[in-house]
Amino acid sequence: KHIVVIAGDGIGQEVTTVGKQVLDRVAEKFGHEFTYDEALIGHAAIEATGNPLPEETITKSKQSDAILFGAVGHPKYDNDPSAKVRPEQGLLGIRKALGLYANLRPIKLFDELLHSSSIKPEFLQGADILFFRELTGDVYFGEKGRKDDGNTAYDQMIYSRYEVERIAVKAFDAAMTRRKKLCSVDKANVLESSRLWREVVQEVAKQYPEVEVEHQFIDAAAMLLIKDPRRFDVVVTGNLFGDILTDEASQIAGSMGMLASASVGDTTGLYEPIHGSAHDITGKGVANPLASVLSAALMLDISFGMKAEAEAVVDAVDQVLKAGFRTRDIADANTPKDLILGTEAMG
Amino acid sequence: KHIVVIAGDGIGQEVTTVGKQVLDRVAEKFGHEFTYDEALIGHAAIEATGNPLPEETITKSKQSDAILFGAVGHPKYDNDPSAKVRPEQGLLGIRKALGLYANLRPIKLFDELLHSSSIKPEFLQGADILFFRELTGDVYFGEKGRKDDGNTAYDQMIYSRYEVERIAVKAFDAAMTRRKKLCSVDKANVLESSRLWREVVQEVAKQYPEVEVEHQFIDAAAMLLIKDPRRFDVVVTGNLFGDILTDEASQIAGSMGMLASASVGDTTGLYEPIHGSAHDITGKGVANPLASVLSAALMLDISFGMKAEAEAVVDAVDQVLKAGFRTRDIADANTPKDLILGTEAMG
Ligand SMILES: CC(C)[C@H](C(=O)O)[C@@H](O)C(=O)O
Ligand SMILES: CC(C)[C@H](C(=O)O)[C@@H](O)C(=O)O
Repeated sequence: KHIVVIAGDGIGQEVTTVGKQVLDRVAEKFGHEFTYDEALIGHAAIEATGNPLPEETITKSKQSDAILFGAVGHPKYDNDPSAKVRPEQGLLGIRKALGLYANLRPIKLFDELLHSSSIKPEFLQGADILFFRELTGDVYFGEKGRKDDGNTAYDQMIYSRYEVERIAVKAFDAAMTRRKKLCSVDKANVLESSRLWREVVQEVAKQYPEVEVEHQFIDAAAMLLIKDPRRFDVVVTGNLFGDILTDEASQIAGSMGMLASASVGDTTGLYEPIHGSAHDITGKGVANPLASVLSAALMLDISFGMKAEAEAVVDAVDQVLKAGFRTRDIADANTPKDLILGTEAMG
Repeated sequence: KHIVVIAGDGIGQEVTTVGKQVLDRVAEKFGHEFTYDEALIGHAAIEATGNPLPEETITKSKQSDAILFGAVGHPKYDNDPSAKVRPEQGLLGIRKALGLYANLRPIKLFDELLHSSSIKPEFLQGADILFFRELTGDVYFGEKGRKDDGNTAYDQMIYSRYEVERIAVKAFDAAMTRRKKLCSVDKANVLESSRLWREVVQEVAKQYPEVEVEHQFIDAAAMLLIKDPRRFDVVVTGNLFGDILTDEASQIAGSMGMLASASVGDTTGLYEPIHGSAHDITGKGVANPLASVLSAALMLDISFGMKAEAEAVVDAVDQVLKAGFRTRDIADANTPKDLILGTEAMG
């Protein structure tokens, strides 16, 4: 299998290094051969080429069997709303170029981290949510611009039937292999794009009579996710609402540093932590690499069909946590100092 | 003072009845005279007139000194994405017609409810956030429609400079009377409307050198709100992001049933619980009326300048909670059965 590593910005480099080491160890243990290439994206790519998504990165990605992705973003652009070229264009561009319309974000709490969340353990125990976030449509990709001499700015929130259908089908298929519950999140009481979303999900639902379906408005969903996380099994939603809900849901898993994601669609799958570039801790060697490690596990499972290998990786994470090891973000007041590891040691 | 009561749908009727009783009691105790009128909105108005926002409702509202509002919404429309006339059009319509561009949503936990949230008390103690949600712009009011024979649907997310400026000024002014911290929430790494938002907030910030300003992306904000609610003082954001964050923030106050809001702008202020019509409990007499009572307190304070009266109402709520009384939504396993009251008794 040929893997392209796109480390990107901030802690992306540090965490993908560990993700890759884990893949190497899997290859060794299970007798596979993984070859690697690297490619640029984001701020790193802008610095090197002026372009947040060089053509070469797309070509290499398309020719690979899977992509191990780090993060993009840089504070320099965040505080300069007028910047024309931005790191995030690289990430949005590659999602679009590879047709990665389905972003799977599993939210599952490792037992050992039950007490590391701000949410009470009795509300978390047993929570297990699989988000399907639509990834190549919505207000992310609608027409955007300025008018009135730059004094008015707009972004079009837009969905077409086929876009909703294909992600809904994936979400329902997954629900059938799980607890057979699906919650679709929209804002159909206000938005026309959400009304289309709901219409299509209702239609697709007819093909899955065994799945118990509910529709929630995004405001209610953001509340229920904290009030009662265990009520959710599969959640399917648009790009923007999915972005918000899955970051929020990181508090269910104790830390953003534990959450992996898989972006799949027409071609090569891309595997990426949910956390961002985290410039405040970049280069300090303290970032939690487990989201990248668990992203590698998703790659093994989804892109390579290597179930046993994927399980071995998840098991290894579990055992490391059981042995008491923590990175800073998942340590608490009771963690002995010598069990708090840096990025490399945790790897 | 002349007050229009717009009860609307679902539990709106039950809770505004209590809100009004509290206003009457205030008038009696403090020697004021409040006169009342009623007006229709939402599903109730559609049933009676075919129109979710009858002209008469707008006229009465404009002629009043303040509006006590209940809720709008009905499940009938939620599950019928093709309905052309919807209750929510009434609420959005009146916000727009009265120019109520600033929605203030204070999130403060009553000490007695410290343990009724799914969030650990040690993360909540002392949390005190004042949200400024922009209320007459954004994707709520941008052009919306269908194309491709109905197979594509869109809503324009749109902001103009003056819209951002006036809400930012209100938020900064409020920050100056509080802990002098302001967090502006947007998605400027992806959205052009958010980049304009950030630009304008940065400009307005220059007039308030004493206020410590931060900008957060909506996904990070949704996470931080649960991870560390105490880091926030004043939060200012757009209509959609504000809708989501304030519902989520209800978990900081223990229950949605405790949260009041004030919508202010060019003319008469409108005072409204954050909770919706809650058809599942409508007519059962179990709804928590305290959000309506606290909305009445905001009315006394903001529209009538009656500070002492407002404080007396908030104090009364506090004492009732201290005495152990609860409605169902804020009761827990330890609440004695005879202290769990219905809507009327709680009033
Ligand atoms: C970096 C940003 C553009 C991105 C998004 O909003 O999609 C990130 O938040 C994510 O969730 O992958
Ligand atoms: C009922 C709905 C249209 C409304 C909104 O989204 O503004 C409600 O959720 C609110 O927060 O007041």
